[in-house]
Amino acid sequence: MNASKRVAADLTAAQCPSREVLDHVTSRWGTLVLIILQEGTLRFGALRDRVGGVSEKMLAQTLRTLEADGLVHREAYPVIPPRVDYSLTPLGEGLTERLVPLFSWVAEHADDIVTRSAG
Amino acid sequence: MNASKRVAADLTAAQCPSREVLDHVTSRWGTLVLIILQEGTLRFGALRDRVGGVSEKMLAQTLRTLEADGLVHREAYPVIPPRVDYSLTPLGEGLTERLVPLFSWVAEHADDIVTRSAG
Repeated sequence: MNASKRVAADLTAAQCPSREVLDHVTSRWGTLVLIILQEGTLRFGALRDRVGGVSEKMLAQTLRTLEADGLVHREAYPVIPPRVDYSLTPLGEGLTERLVPLFSWVAEHADDIVTRSAG
Repeated sequence: MNASKRVAADLTAAQCPSREVLDHVTSRWGTLVLIILQEGTLRFGALRDRVGGVSEKMLAQTLRTLEADGLVHREAYPVIPPRVDYSLTPLGEGLTERLVPLFSWVAEHADDIVTRSAG
């Protein structure tokens, strides 16, 4: 059995834990947050400005999920006004390295694909 | 600007066509269908059996989207009972090659992540 067959066998079972994790890391906002944090630590407001179109509520929820998964680290500083920084954990960096080739491919082929869908 | 920065710049704009394509290829069922079709051509019923937990309606909708994107080829044979085969196009193969490392990572780390989330 080759690598992709093993992967398919694991992920296609409805009750498999991989399925839940896959949902998190391929969520609309989750993927974008991970890719943006690969550039470095960001405060909540800066992250919100970078992820075009996300609401504060949805961004906060996405960050909580990624933090609970151990992919994102949240650091709150006891200052006024409050300051909260977000960064990738080593686990999150490992994942994001695998996301980048996928995103590059999408960025490269998106115009062709959208044109085709509309045609 | 390095590769990941370029990708982030492209994908984080809310109106960017890449965002729409990213939604398709990272949809819950879209990713699974692409990975399974990497093994070879499959009939609708066989595909449904392989994607645990998907309804026929949702699978049909997922396949229509992937076909419209040019990622999946649909071949209907004029026989009774009807026979419809699905396979990856060369474009779909290019995408799926980038999905496999991501799926492998998820399969490898899912147990740790789910345990952590529940803890």
